[in-house]
Amino acid sequence: MSNVKKFAVILSGCGVFDGSEIHEAVMTLYAITRKGATYEIFAPDIAQHHVINHVDGSVMNEARNVLVESARIARGKIKPLSEFNPELFDALIFPGGMGVAKNLSTWAFKGQNCTVIPEVENAIKGMHKLHKPIGALCIAPVLMAKVLGNVTLTVGKDATTIKALETLGAKHQQTNHAQVVVDEKNMVFSTPCYMLDASIVDIAEGAKAIVAEILKWI
Amino acid sequence: MSNVKKFAVILSGCGVFDGSEIHEAVMTLYAITRKGATYEIFAPDIAQHHVINHVDGSVMNEARNVLVESARIARGKIKPLSEFNPELFDALIFPGGMGVAKNLSTWAFKGQNCTVIPEVENAIKGMHKLHKPIGALCIAPVLMAKVLGNVTLTVGKDATTIKALETLGAKHQQTNHAQVVVDEKNMVFSTPCYMLDASIVDIAEGAKAIVAEILKWI
Repeated sequence: MSNVKKFAVILSGCGVFDGSEIHEAVMTLYAITRKGATYEIFAPDIAQHHVINHVDGSVMNEARNVLVESARIARGKIKPLSEFNPELFDALIFPGGMGVAKNLSTWAFKGQNCTVIPEVENAIKGMHKLHKPIGALCIAPVLMAKVLGNVTLTVGKDATTIKALETLGAKHQQTNHAQVVVDEKNMVFSTPCYMLDASIVDIAEGAKAIVAEILKWI
Repeated sequence: MSNVKKFAVILSGCGVFDGSEIHEAVMTLYAITRKGATYEIFAPDIAQHHVINHVDGSVMNEARNVLVESARIARGKIKPLSEFNPELFDALIFPGGMGVAKNLSTWAFKGQNCTVIPEVENAIKGMHKLHKPIGALCIAPVLMAKVLGNVTLTVGKDATTIKALETLGAKHQQTNHAQVVVDEKNMVFSTPCYMLDASIVDIAEGAKAIVAEILKWI
């Protein structure tokens, strides 16, 4: 491999309430590029759970596809998650947003009893087996707990989410903005972002911190 | 007014090919917040011209609303552009994306013979009358040329766009990333962003430069 480190970024749609949180996704791409690393973007080619009107929060009578909507954030440069190969990347990272909990898994509806879609499970397990870093922002650490079980992570300070994570065997550490929890054994990195009250500057700082931390371990 | 400077940000949807360019929009919000200023986000409550599949570029058989889709970038904190009052803001700024040329105007289809929707025309003229700064990224300066005519601006280096702008009486200056053209007389500020080949870091630098320049003139 070249000296340029390569991240795979997994998106889950386009919009905080039914897809990827846009600020977290964009700030992750920015943090990676700013550090001299590169990225490829992936998303599952599946139907969104639902479509939310982001003005009033109502469910819209529409059907959208996770890959197609994620492509908006990627400006068209995106691949189906089925094509992801852990051998070709130095790190994997998940921005947050409800798409993680509605499209990549059923966490939003079933908490610790959720399922994670096979492509996401395979991506996480594939990187884990190679002992390569996996980053997770906001609500995305729940995927690590569900797939890997006994991991140390953070989702900020939300008591309900923390309790559900602990039933899966995860160890939770409370954090503030731009703090990154590092699980050395599992190479899992997490930071809270919009799981806390946040400005867009907090999100940029969180993304910068987690990407910088991951790069230290590659 | 308080000492905290307030921007109005006008969006045109959510996605480079049929709405606001997402990276430019997010980096504009980031640049404003980072400088200690604040923002409110607006978009017209109108139908999008069309919906583009951002994976393959095809037109989708769907109808979407500009305000509702823009709300994805705004995380729901958005107002209809009809409520914009230039008296309440220190500056106005337009991120780019094809939504500017397809939803806010018909530039994508008619070039210099385009129309600009009345709410956008009123917003620009309202700020101009008060001699308050108006910023425009990427393709958005075409709105200034169409509404105000004899302005000095930049869209980077694209010969076809430059020629069309000149027929409207605008003066064009070629620029590279993070260069801002300042029209002192009209208080119009522009920077090229994705009108040039760009990385997301270039976009962040462009947004930072134009916001910093505008703040000097408030």
